[in-house]
Amino acid sequence: MSGVFTRDDEYFMRAALAEARVAFDEGEIPIGAVIVCEGRIIARAHNEVERLLDPTAHAEVLAITSATQSLGGKFLSSGCTLYVTVEPCTMCAGALFWSRVGRIVYGAKEEKFGYSCHAPSLFPKAIRVEGGLLEVEARELMQSFFASRR
Amino acid sequence: MSGVFTRDDEYFMRAALAEARVAFDEGEIPIGAVIVCEGRIIARAHNEVERLLDPTAHAEVLAITSATQSLGGKFLSSGCTLYVTVEPCTMCAGALFWSRVGRIVYGAKEEKFGYSCHAPSLFPKAIRVEGGLLEVEARELMQSFFASRR
Repeated sequence: MSGVFTRDDEYFMRAALAEARVAFDEGEIPIGAVIVCEGRIIARAHNEVERLLDPTAHAEVLAITSATQSLGGKFLSSGCTLYVTVEPCTMCAGALFWSRVGRIVYGAKEEKFGYSCHAPSLFPKAIRVEGGLLEVEARELMQSFFASRR
Repeated sequence: MSGVFTRDDEYFMRAALAEARVAFDEGEIPIGAVIVCEGRIIARAHNEVERLLDPTAHAEVLAITSATQSLGGKFLSSGCTLYVTVEPCTMCAGALFWSRVGRIVYGAKEEKFGYSCHAPSLFPKAIRVEGGLLEVEARELMQSFFASRR
């Protein structure tokens, strides 16, 4: 699903892209995420699978864990939005489902591992998902990472 | 899928049930997991969503993180089996997909949140999934937990 995005959306996705660039520089698959609650970034994270030797350490999972710590409860709220540079995988989509986030905005589509390949009907209506924001930047970062590894 | 289980399988599932009982006593949804590698338990975990205030802190995710630390790499191997008392949810199934575990054995089916409801085709053939081992014990623990909360 592609969405109609505001200037704020773009601002927050640029913050997620900045996280993705940190991942890139650290030799991690360059995906970044931020969680915004009432107009304020409450969590920033990037993929840390290599550093933590943990296959579950995706940007979204780390951002959710960080955000719930910041909020002091086990759930996010419907007023929270997660911005992530690439479509969440099935694991991260499942984590977002449990988190009760209100809205998910992603950049580039993930054709092979995106949740919409394996669990397209996962989200209830209460969780809005919109893709395509700054997708070119997000995709170029991924392509440039994988090209550098060949 | 239900499987043919060995005495070892039952031994390891009893270890997962012991973890589930720890969760029960701590007021957590009573699900436990262990990861076995070459006949040895390398990780034990139970649901800790309440204690950690983290909606991603399911038994399987915590067990994977613990197991990769124990092995010193970012992946499990095809020789590893995860035993979990209840069918993994979509998030945990996604985590197990990334972990490259070789086999998943679960106890009770999870009719509402089990991965087979939302992502039934997630696992490649290299990951074998078998359910139904000591399912009565696992289900009774869950039912007794939710009955005590009503």
